[in-house]
Amino acid sequence: MKDKQPLILVTNDDGIDAGGIHALVEMISDMGRIVVVAPDGPRSGQSCALTVSRPLRLTPVADDGHVAYYKTDGTPVDCVKLAINEILGGHPDLILSGINHGSNTAISTIYSGTMGAAYEGSVIGVPSAGFSLCTHDVSPDFGCCREMVRRTTNALLEKPLPYSVCLNINIPYECDIKGVRICRQALGYWTEEYEKRIDPRGQSYYWVTGRFVNTEPDADDTDSWAVANGYVAVVPTSCDRTAVDAFPAVKRLFSL
Amino acid sequence: MKDKQPLILVTNDDGIDAGGIHALVEMISDMGRIVVVAPDGPRSGQSCALTVSRPLRLTPVADDGHVAYYKTDGTPVDCVKLAINEILGGHPDLILSGINHGSNTAISTIYSGTMGAAYEGSVIGVPSAGFSLCTHDVSPDFGCCREMVRRTTNALLEKPLPYSVCLNINIPYECDIKGVRICRQALGYWTEEYEKRIDPRGQSYYWVTGRFVNTEPDADDTDSWAVANGYVAVVPTSCDRTAVDAFPAVKRLFSL
Repeated sequence: MKDKQPLILVTNDDGIDAGGIHALVEMISDMGRIVVVAPDGPRSGQSCALTVSRPLRLTPVADDGHVAYYKTDGTPVDCVKLAINEILGGHPDLILSGINHGSNTAISTIYSGTMGAAYEGSVIGVPSAGFSLCTHDVSPDFGCCREMVRRTTNALLEKPLPYSVCLNINIPYECDIKGVRICRQALGYWTEEYEKRIDPRGQSYYWVTGRFVNTEPDADDTDSWAVANGYVAVVPTSCDRTAVDAFPAVKRLFSL
Repeated sequence: MKDKQPLILVTNDDGIDAGGIHALVEMISDMGRIVVVAPDGPRSGQSCALTVSRPLRLTPVADDGHVAYYKTDGTPVDCVKLAINEILGGHPDLILSGINHGSNTAISTIYSGTMGAAYEGSVIGVPSAGFSLCTHDVSPDFGCCREMVRRTTNALLEKPLPYSVCLNINIPYECDIKGVRICRQALGYWTEEYEKRIDPRGQSYYWVTGRFVNTEPDADDTDSWAVANGYVAVVPTSCDRTAVDAFPAVKRLFSL
């Protein structure tokens, strides 16, 4: 038992007004001192983007003595960096990101701002996790996430993760969750990605859309399979992008 | 030998007016038909970000029958997706990103827009590489990249990369390059990251700055070491973020 309350940094990519971040804070409110630093609006698809071309604003929003809220005009990664450098004056004990409105399974982990914040935690060695609720419902009941959020928070406050690793946790939108599976990221890609429209001045513009193609729908060790079959999917993910298995092939490529 | 010219998609994160992308196109101009789709201005630090909250514009800039140029108001990932879906009507034979003005070694691979475009190629199984010239010189001579750019282009047009893998290639700014090393991503993090300023109305704002701390400066198998010691660093990197080595630790974490 630690003799002082753990310090938990909470962020997301749906913005400080999103239901998911307030549900997350409520679920862990008795588990530590909480500082929320979140974007001032939606930042979905922001990946690990970092704002370098303009300065950032950081605005206190509220503080009830137990939970302090700040907003920024930056990305989820900016939120983590600003929190640590300008608010906390050091590392928190834990970084939690989400709860994202929608799935971040499979290849979505590379585009996800929710996971961007978790990767940032893993870079600096702070236990970090991103939570996503797998539903398109715009105003879902996050209650089915409670048990997993609390179990993860407890676990990460007790045991460290290996260096460079954070957790991508996707939760099915079901009352009757079957259990937790440690998974790998499903392979696949997005297709039919744009809807072309013509503006009132006759110029074309493109909205990203598309659908995900899971190239291994029958593999039962992936995150996509787990969520589709009623399990919470936990993917240990890393900010170390080195593909060690590919070294022999790349050496041959350069005749080394 | 293929009986038709390979199709090479070129993009970057410094924007269509940057010297590095024009140097890259010139270096490979005899090696295939080239389509350039690049951001309309700098997009450094954009990682794998994808524009979802607004539509994108895609504007033809020039076409000399051999090289066609387009610009977008999106990210490097948007450039690749728009190119494939709206210009090429399918996959190119190769995606090259860069030449970036500045290093993308070590943890920079997770923030880099140059590498974002290369990761996007790896998602869809197109051989892809990001090139970076390791100098802060704002108007460098890219000539020292020529041999490596051509060698890589030839190699990737002949032999496939393993699925999900692309190459992060950092080139030292030296005439006398010692050779090519296949490396892993150096571990480390950024510190002292913000410069706080006060605007004329008395409000604070924050510019990202900071310096990189290499936590393993003596390890001679990393990209940072290779570049610092006069070698081209080639890191095989993956869009599969699963940390397979961490499965046992994460199973213990959840008592599974």
